[in-house]
Amino acid sequence: MTTPPFEIRPSVIKGDPADTYLHWTKEIMRLESVNPKVLLDFSAARDGILCGIEEVKALLGNVLPSSENDSDSEVEVWGLEEGEEFKAGEPILRIICNYASVALYETSICGILSSCIAWATAAKECVDAAENTAAIISHGARHIHPNVAHLLDYASVIGGCSSVSTNLGSKTAGRSPVGNMPHSLPLIFGNTVDAAVAFDKHLGVEVQRIVVVDTFHDEAEESLNVAEVLRDKLRGVRLDTPIERGGVTPTMVLEVRNKLDQMNFQHVEIYVSGGFNPEKIKQFTDLNIPVHGYLVGSYISSASPNDVRADLLEIEDKIVSKRGRLPGRLASPRLERLI
Amino acid sequence: MTTPPFEIRPSVIKGDPADTYLHWTKEIMRLESVNPKVLLDFSAARDGILCGIEEVKALLGNVLPSSENDSDSEVEVWGLEEGEEFKAGEPILRIICNYASVALYETSICGILSSCIAWATAAKECVDAAENTAAIISHGARHIHPNVAHLLDYASVIGGCSSVSTNLGSKTAGRSPVGNMPHSLPLIFGNTVDAAVAFDKHLGVEVQRIVVVDTFHDEAEESLNVAEVLRDKLRGVRLDTPIERGGVTPTMVLEVRNKLDQMNFQHVEIYVSGGFNPEKIKQFTDLNIPVHGYLVGSYISSASPNDVRADLLEIEDKIVSKRGRLPGRLASPRLERLI
Amino acid sequence: MTTPPFEIRPSVIKGDPADTYLHWTKEIMRLESVNPKVLLDFSAARDGILCGIEEVKALLGNVLPSSENDSDSEVEVWGLEEGEEFKAGEPILRIICNYASVALYETSICGILSSCIAWATAAKECVDAAENTAAIISHGARHIHPNVAHLLDYASVIGGCSSVSTNLGSKTAGRSPVGNMPHSLPLIFGNTVDAAVAFDKHLGVEVQRIVVVDTFHDEAEESLNVAEVLRDKLRGVRLDTPIERGGVTPTMVLEVRNKLDQMNFQHVEIYVSGGFNPEKIKQFTDLNIPVHGYLVGSYISSASPNDVRADLLEIEDKIVSKRGRLPGRLASPRLERLI
Amino acid sequence: MTTPPFEIRPSVIKGDPADTYLHWTKEIMRLESVNPKVLLDFSAARDGILCGIEEVKALLGNVLPSSENDSDSEVEVWGLEEGEEFKAGEPILRIICNYASVALYETSICGILSSCIAWATAAKECVDAAENTAAIISHGARHIHPNVAHLLDYASVIGGCSSVSTNLGSKTAGRSPVGNMPHSLPLIFGNTVDAAVAFDKHLGVEVQRIVVVDTFHDEAEESLNVAEVLRDKLRGVRLDTPIERGGVTPTMVLEVRNKLDQMNFQHVEIYVSGGFNPEKIKQFTDLNIPVHGYLVGSYISSASPNDVRADLLEIEDKIVSKRGRLPGRLASPRLERLI
Amino acid sequence: MTTPPFEIRPSVIKGDPADTYLHWTKEIMRLESVNPKVLLDFSAARDGILCGIEEVKALLGNVLPSSENDSDSEVEVWGLEEGEEFKAGEPILRIICNYASVALYETSICGILSSCIAWATAAKECVDAAENTAAIISHGARHIHPNVAHLLDYASVIGGCSSVSTNLGSKTAGRSPVGNMPHSLPLIFGNTVDAAVAFDKHLGVEVQRIVVVDTFHDEAEESLNVAEVLRDKLRGVRLDTPIERGGVTPTMVLEVRNKLDQMNFQHVEIYVSGGFNPEKIKQFTDLNIPVHGYLVGSYISSASPNDVRADLLEIEDKIVSKRGRLPGRLASPRLERLI
Amino acid sequence: MTTPPFEIRPSVIKGDPADTYLHWTKEIMRLESVNPKVLLDFSAARDGILCGIEEVKALLGNVLPSSENDSDSEVEVWGLEEGEEFKAGEPILRIICNYASVALYETSICGILSSCIAWATAAKECVDAAENTAAIISHGARHIHPNVAHLLDYASVIGGCSSVSTNLGSKTAGRSPVGNMPHSLPLIFGNTVDAAVAFDKHLGVEVQRIVVVDTFHDEAEESLNVAEVLRDKLRGVRLDTPIERGGVTPTMVLEVRNKLDQMNFQHVEIYVSGGFNPEKIKQFTDLNIPVHGYLVGSYISSASPNDVRADLLEIEDKIVSKRGRLPGRLASPRLERLI
Repeated sequence: MTTPPFEIRPSVIKGDPADTYLHWTKEIMRLESVNPKVLLDFSAARDGILCGIEEVKALLGNVLPSSENDSDSEVEVWGLEEGEEFKAGEPILRIICNYASVALYETSICGILSSCIAWATAAKECVDAAENTAAIISHGARHIHPNVAHLLDYASVIGGCSSVSTNLGSKTAGRSPVGNMPHSLPLIFGNTVDAAVAFDKHLGVEVQRIVVVDTFHDEAEESLNVAEVLRDKLRGVRLDTPIERGGVTPTMVLEVRNKLDQMNFQHVEIYVSGGFNPEKIKQFTDLNIPVHGYLVGSYISSASPNDVRADLLEIEDKIVSKRGRLPGRLASPRLERLI
Repeated sequence: MTTPPFEIRPSVIKGDPADTYLHWTKEIMRLESVNPKVLLDFSAARDGILCGIEEVKALLGNVLPSSENDSDSEVEVWGLEEGEEFKAGEPILRIICNYASVALYETSICGILSSCIAWATAAKECVDAAENTAAIISHGARHIHPNVAHLLDYASVIGGCSSVSTNLGSKTAGRSPVGNMPHSLPLIFGNTVDAAVAFDKHLGVEVQRIVVVDTFHDEAEESLNVAEVLRDKLRGVRLDTPIERGGVTPTMVLEVRNKLDQMNFQHVEIYVSGGFNPEKIKQFTDLNIPVHGYLVGSYISSASPNDVRADLLEIEDKIVSKRGRLPGRLASPRLERLI
Repeated sequence: MTTPPFEIRPSVIKGDPADTYLHWTKEIMRLESVNPKVLLDFSAARDGILCGIEEVKALLGNVLPSSENDSDSEVEVWGLEEGEEFKAGEPILRIICNYASVALYETSICGILSSCIAWATAAKECVDAAENTAAIISHGARHIHPNVAHLLDYASVIGGCSSVSTNLGSKTAGRSPVGNMPHSLPLIFGNTVDAAVAFDKHLGVEVQRIVVVDTFHDEAEESLNVAEVLRDKLRGVRLDTPIERGGVTPTMVLEVRNKLDQMNFQHVEIYVSGGFNPEKIKQFTDLNIPVHGYLVGSYISSASPNDVRADLLEIEDKIVSKRGRLPGRLASPRLERLI
Repeated sequence: MTTPPFEIRPSVIKGDPADTYLHWTKEIMRLESVNPKVLLDFSAARDGILCGIEEVKALLGNVLPSSENDSDSEVEVWGLEEGEEFKAGEPILRIICNYASVALYETSICGILSSCIAWATAAKECVDAAENTAAIISHGARHIHPNVAHLLDYASVIGGCSSVSTNLGSKTAGRSPVGNMPHSLPLIFGNTVDAAVAFDKHLGVEVQRIVVVDTFHDEAEESLNVAEVLRDKLRGVRLDTPIERGGVTPTMVLEVRNKLDQMNFQHVEIYVSGGFNPEKIKQFTDLNIPVHGYLVGSYISSASPNDVRADLLEIEDKIVSKRGRLPGRLASPRLERLI
Repeated sequence: MTTPPFEIRPSVIKGDPADTYLHWTKEIMRLESVNPKVLLDFSAARDGILCGIEEVKALLGNVLPSSENDSDSEVEVWGLEEGEEFKAGEPILRIICNYASVALYETSICGILSSCIAWATAAKECVDAAENTAAIISHGARHIHPNVAHLLDYASVIGGCSSVSTNLGSKTAGRSPVGNMPHSLPLIFGNTVDAAVAFDKHLGVEVQRIVVVDTFHDEAEESLNVAEVLRDKLRGVRLDTPIERGGVTPTMVLEVRNKLDQMNFQHVEIYVSGGFNPEKIKQFTDLNIPVHGYLVGSYISSASPNDVRADLLEIEDKIVSKRGRLPGRLASPRLERLI
Repeated sequence: MTTPPFEIRPSVIKGDPADTYLHWTKEIMRLESVNPKVLLDFSAARDGILCGIEEVKALLGNVLPSSENDSDSEVEVWGLEEGEEFKAGEPILRIICNYASVALYETSICGILSSCIAWATAAKECVDAAENTAAIISHGARHIHPNVAHLLDYASVIGGCSSVSTNLGSKTAGRSPVGNMPHSLPLIFGNTVDAAVAFDKHLGVEVQRIVVVDTFHDEAEESLNVAEVLRDKLRGVRLDTPIERGGVTPTMVLEVRNKLDQMNFQHVEIYVSGGFNPEKIKQFTDLNIPVHGYLVGSYISSASPNDVRADLLEIEDKIVSKRGRLPGRLASPRLERLI
């Protein structure tokens, strides 16, 4: 995947999302004429998949003094790569520069990494649970603020999802969206078959014909109805049975598959959605349920941020640390120089 | 609290964060010349505190046709108020308009509400746990993407927090930040007392002198050191003992209070941070531990989104519903007309 | 309920189902010319609802010597009443006679009571769980040997069921069967509506028109289909959704009720079946789900026998007991003289 | 074991224990002149040991038209063998005939199999727990209705029990009963030794002399008392210590064995009873407790029926199925043609 | 209870059981000519019943300088009373004197109190569980080193036991021992009745005739045997059924009571032993089992020491404390001046 | 370890700590002129490490008649060795003599073994948990009555502790005490560094300079303070952080180690105390935390006595036993003749 050009908002560059006490600290340092060179290490609270480092790099590229112009000291930024696995407590990002240059960005850097790592790691868990038997499609945008929905999508792809649900997310992650329809389409057409026909009639060939089949009738029955009309043009059906009707069960998928096969619709793929998480995907995988794709929403979007913290380990090349922290930098041969 | 003027980003107005299938649905409807008047109800998966409705209102004000100019049908938007309690499944927002007008915003509306409700509700739980004995200060920005950090802060205040940690968040929520310092200040000054003196020397009187006292020495010892230097100017101390040293315990607060009192520093307040959540706050409250303020970070910032969904309940005044949903609108006398 | 005339099979009268060691004991007593008058008390291992006492009375009426003709001693039989509640260990049946007269029937008496008490008690638990909001219909015959299926049905009615599923059971219990159809009827007609029409055409007015609606289509959809054809003649629908499709859920019943009401079929009753037990019935009751009748099968038929034992407490008016048993008869004022 | 000639009661042949709705179905089919050839598969809810298939075969032999005389279609019955292990959901019985011929027997067939399978499987679990170190003797007749007590005994032997407790059960299962005495014998003789002497004096040599030794005195003490009188004629003692006295424990058996051996009664076997189940038998087996036979009562008799259901899978050679069931017959190479 | 004259061993007075570092501390202080007046508070880790304070008082009486002769400072000792309830952390003993005078006794004082409090508190729990329906007799000496067995007995009486098992313990606690016999007596006489007769023949009238009845025969049987011989001279029987035979159960006591009463031995009391603890005593109490006395052994003797610690709270009237402890003395109005 | 000369107190020799009923039994035997030769086996309730056998041997040496002078029978005493592992129920001590000779010592022998075995076994568990990475130092005297504190220390060394805390215990166990100081020393000197200097100035070279560093300041800080003053003379620091401050954690030890090393104090050892038990030691061991010694207090001192019982198995060479016990002696080839 080519790294997308992350756009950093001006307010972030101004330090607006920084904790106020960092502004005060920078101001006190200025008035006291204190601005030592420091080494800041960032690490996460739990094991995970790194994500957000590219966005952080873009941010630092905007705000750090270029080394040539910085009379005081050389700036160095080191980090692991996007998508790399790491351990709790391991340095994932290291910044060496005068403290005033980076003070206002500690909050934002920690925040970018905490969110993106959590989403990528959750996506990875789903991908692992499917054991290469099916695609995982991230569909969680509706559960999360639109300011970050495209980043959720991007992180899902870093974690291994094959595609994502939103326009901006697909663009950010460099993936085509999967053909799919909301329940509102059959509801407005009053009929799933009519909705499917209209979908097929108007959309380009690049959009797979995958029809949601639980809106009005029994899923097996409706799958056959749609298949009989679209026939070879039908790429798949999506089962999204609400929990009020028992949700999508392994036996339901088997039954739909069985009935499609008996009517010679072996080419029709089955996609499922509704409350899928690694545990439920694993259950389907272990039973060899013939699913082509799992649409995963809230498991990824509600992943608890993997809190990233910054530790000041050296000041003017002297080892420092607050109580409770091991002093000095950890040897981290996997870190690559980013800036 | 006066409602802040929520700025809606142009890309949201263009529908960029929308699920792609909504773009396709709108396009199919256009080509089929179908655009019925619909009633859309939004409800959340769990009980909570409403937050985000003002931002949604600002979004809809930008994108819905004004009723006068809309030849087809009247637009109505109804909702509960910011900060109001609601039950799972209860309508919290109702939109009546032609479907094409709202199609591209369903994802964003659900997302705004899912995130903001979760944060406000988590903040409320902390506030309730303190039972009016202490302030709750939201300090979670570093755990969440900077694009939404100010909204986390805003939602925390809606949930009852007295103040928040970021510059933009304080502005959005209309609150002054609490005087406070990061560990980097004493680390850079090499000494907590010197850091405290510099803090006091350079910052305006509107900033409370609250000094973090666990960086180098025992908390009780350092509290006395700082108090003896700043004396009446010291507003409070902050205990942030890392978990590696056992975290902040009830007996530690008692001991610090006791020692401050014995040296006649009864005026010095005690603030605590580090892993506080409603359960731990409740434990302190039940033991009457003399805390003036709890700084709460990840409990609020990692609150799992309270998934909001949109149900299409009426189309051209006819009751509709997908399988598994009760058809027709629920009577909701608490809804107020927003637009 | 009038007590049915229980027919006792000749082999039971001959003592064929008795434990062989009782035959040996009787033979040893005969050869030793020993045949004392004894007092035998029967009690159950757990609390319950008495059932089977009428059948036991019929058996003893066949085998005990009539007192007039018995030169040795007077025969007495005392017991609680059919349907009465009792405690674990409490005497529910007391027989006073020469031991040889009753020796061969101890096994059968314990067996009749153990089975029938268990079924009646389980039925009572279901009835209690419905709290008078709905009927309980016993439908467990298919889970139990046909030699005792009618007794399961009889015991269910003693426990409070309003009707039962089998021909012989209905006769034994003196109840009319509830109108109902198996899935084989729609399967053979290929169509639920056709099956319903045939059912209505050929059966007498005493049979309620209750149609099973989950065979081919969604339950809500099929309920409307059937109601539109049979209209006022339709008494009810039965939901028997298989567990592979999530079983019958509270929300499904609400949805069917809601859709029937919106189409003005308020008179159509809803019956449910499939894995119902007191816990699940209680859940529906607590949620005020509008169910008219619960068909309960295996919960009643698989009730674990409430083991009844016989204790020899007096021999020739002398108190005796084996180790571990309290000697002597318990005062039991509730016992009524049966023979 | 030779299969016993199962006698089918006339009322079963008349369909009296059938669910009433099957009578109605047969009647509607007659009036509509509908009677397709069908394939009915029977399967059980849990894994188990097949039992009852011989009785079902006897029933079908009485009621199915012989193929020669049946103008419409050939009758076929296939099944697994008595005593064979099977999996949940696997076909254990398959009937192919016109539906009207079998309609009234579905309830009884399911009932016979559900009960008998449960008993045989529970017996097998006890036999497995003893790991060939001891015999299992079924002694549950007193916990179950006398109409089926002999079938419980028969099924116990199918499951591996070496003998059973009732006269009719022993005959049905083709086994001799084990010599044994009830507590009433010593109670009536007032003395265990006198009871043992009378037992020995009057019963034929084919009855083993096994004496129950917990009626009046300590088990070890009474075992020695009895052994000293009967000496070589004593086959064994039975320990049935009531739970009020702690039940039979492993150390008690060891102590009795030890004391018998020290007095040179190594030939006297030890039988135990009272609440034994596979778990308790396994505990004794694992500790190498020297038990010759376990008398098992309620564990087998209270085995929860293993619910057997019938699925209509083909009608006039066309595949059918109700929702939630996989359509079509499963390949079942282990099925043997029975009729 | 009159306080017994506690004899303090010379080695304790010499400080032999003191932690060596206290000897070093005293030596360093001597060489540095430092010996401030201090306030030492003793408190326990868990709530309990005070015991050992009299022994501590005797120890301090031997080692503390009398105030008149002490040129430096006045000696004060304050404490709660023997048998008084206290809370965790509450001062139970306070010593004010020059530190060198008490340094070598801190270990012993803590040790005396930790052990004695634990035993008294455990005894109290048993007494409370019996709710005044029966006596508790402490019988734990055999589970604990003979150097402290009499103190276990003394503490048991402080906790509410009516009597104890050892000679020295009875003397220390000022109680008469309860008439009782070990199993060795019947074993040596080969017969419980003979042992009972010899017991009755040779012991003075002040010893109750309580006979252990589980050595050879069934408890109920042996109780009657003994009662028939000793008749009115028999005070009671003791049931000590080993766990290998199921232990003493509630129903066994009922059965023995019942059989004694039926033979007109209502005057014979029942004592029980073997694994009794508060939970098991409570079970018997709740069931109204007619027990006259519980012999409790290891529950009391194995009570985990309630660790008592000493805190140095004032030095030369100045408040001091180590980290983690609240500084200064707690107001404790319940403390009485002991010395 | 050379066995210490255990001094047996005269009152034990007089039988004062014996259960009174043993005095009565001896008196009855004397008056009946009964005094058979018996075999008494002692065994423990749980697996463990033998301790106390040397003290028992010293006791028996004082009280048993020497075989030459005993006209009646030969005296034999057999036992396992001090420190040997044994199984529950296995004979650990066997005494063969006339019963009257040993009757009064059964209580004391059981008591000595029950206590000492428990302490040695608990010590062994701590030693095992450290897996040879660190010493275990027993420090429990203050939790247990001074009459037995030296025996606790002795048993700890039998279980593998390298040293103990008390003077008398060190002498009994033949070990030198470890250099250490109580918190009272720094409290009295008002300063940990001054206390350390005085400790170093006045104590002999055989006492290691190990300084407690948590009294006033942060442990890491104070460790450096002390090391900078004592330098090469400092053997180690002891961390005893109170639980109110989170106790000693693995990361705290790492941090102290790290900071000492960075200042070139690699020679300073780290000792820890405060609530350590096998589980917590194992946690440190598994994490390779660099601890030199664990001071263990209440885990060893509060070890529940491993109840030892005496069984009379032979009387005049005839096998006897009470109900519930296997009769006769167990073959025990590991027993060695002690007397």
